[in-house]
Amino acid sequence: MIEFHTWKTPNGRKVAIMLEELGEPYKLHPVDFSQKQQFTPEFLAISPNNKIPAIVDTDAAGGPLAIFESGAILTYLAERSGRFLEPAGPVRFKTLEWLYWQVGGLGPMLGQFAYFAVMSKDPPNPAAIERFGAEVGRLLGVLEGRLQASAYLGGEQYTIADMASYPWMVGATTMMADALGDRLAGKPAIQDWMARVGARPAVQAGMAIPA
Amino acid sequence: MIEFHTWKTPNGRKVAIMLEELGEPYKLHPVDFSQKQQFTPEFLAISPNNKIPAIVDTDAAGGPLAIFESGAILTYLAERSGRFLEPAGPVRFKTLEWLYWQVGGLGPMLGQFAYFAVMSKDPPNPAAIERFGAEVGRLLGVLEGRLQASAYLGGEQYTIADMASYPWMVGATTMMADALGDRLAGKPAIQDWMARVGARPAVQAGMAIPA
Repeated sequence: MIEFHTWKTPNGRKVAIMLEELGEPYKLHPVDFSQKQQFTPEFLAISPNNKIPAIVDTDAAGGPLAIFESGAILTYLAERSGRFLEPAGPVRFKTLEWLYWQVGGLGPMLGQFAYFAVMSKDPPNPAAIERFGAEVGRLLGVLEGRLQASAYLGGEQYTIADMASYPWMVGATTMMADALGDRLAGKPAIQDWMARVGARPAVQAGMAIPA
Repeated sequence: MIEFHTWKTPNGRKVAIMLEELGEPYKLHPVDFSQKQQFTPEFLAISPNNKIPAIVDTDAAGGPLAIFESGAILTYLAERSGRFLEPAGPVRFKTLEWLYWQVGGLGPMLGQFAYFAVMSKDPPNPAAIERFGAEVGRLLGVLEGRLQASAYLGGEQYTIADMASYPWMVGATTMMADALGDRLAGKPAIQDWMARVGARPAVQAGMAIPA
């Protein structure tokens, strides 16, 4: 059984989507940020970086295995099930390069842009908004280019790379839409991909976890 | 043959270290940022995100395979050689979680801290320096905790996770040292790990590439 520790954020929803795609039972443990539950000793023992998502596979060979970091969890669940990540060959590494691109680029830059442009209660910081807005705009152009060349990020099949970027792009096109302005305009391949990914029942289910 | 496109940055040096550890021949292609060579059409075809490092494996099954993103390249070279990443089991996923932690956390946050606190020619931005300095301090505490529990990031053996964090920690303890101040103090396990990793001949060679 997978024990799934998560909350209502894009990084949590990547793993929620994967678990729903796999259709196997898992036990949900909401980590309520409003109650600072990410700082409890119990959670720290599973996720020493104090962040969700984290899982514990209670059936792992050799004893229960705790894993944090959404990219590592997606890879674990893919290799454990043999689904949504090729075991070898070019498509495996196209999938991993776009998964790392999300983890190291799109995610952190959208996260900082959202902080400075939308969420921060501090005085406005135009230099930071400009810096992260420009980098997000560049990254959205890179994403559009990839999705004009292939139906999904890893190639012609839906993989864990799509599960990683989709929840962040939902955030970009909803809570950050006003701040991003025309940086989202004129990118039809992103729109088509979001519609295609978002139509999957498991994606819809995962985006609503935890309720 | 591996064609290796890189420049004098921590992300490039992760892969330089791995190639030196593997001891196999590769062809070096410096991508000189001072001449904006990362924006040439030739490089864009290999690395659509316009960043180094990138590789092309000219001997890959099915034809030449281009890969960008340092984490994906390290994983590719590890799986291709069977070295520095276990093929399955708990240590594989401990290695990957710390590799993703570097790619999604330590790297971007040190990068933003270095920009605002050291490199930017714009007027000082105290709010951004405080934000990224605090997050870097937190991440250094997480790293210290991990290295107090195990000799290397993945466990008791040196892996691609160490190759990913080491060049960034060299940057933190040199060009960022004054800006970080006491956030680096009182972390003996990090110091010991840096000495242990930094003593490896392949690490010393990789940190000097390109010359």
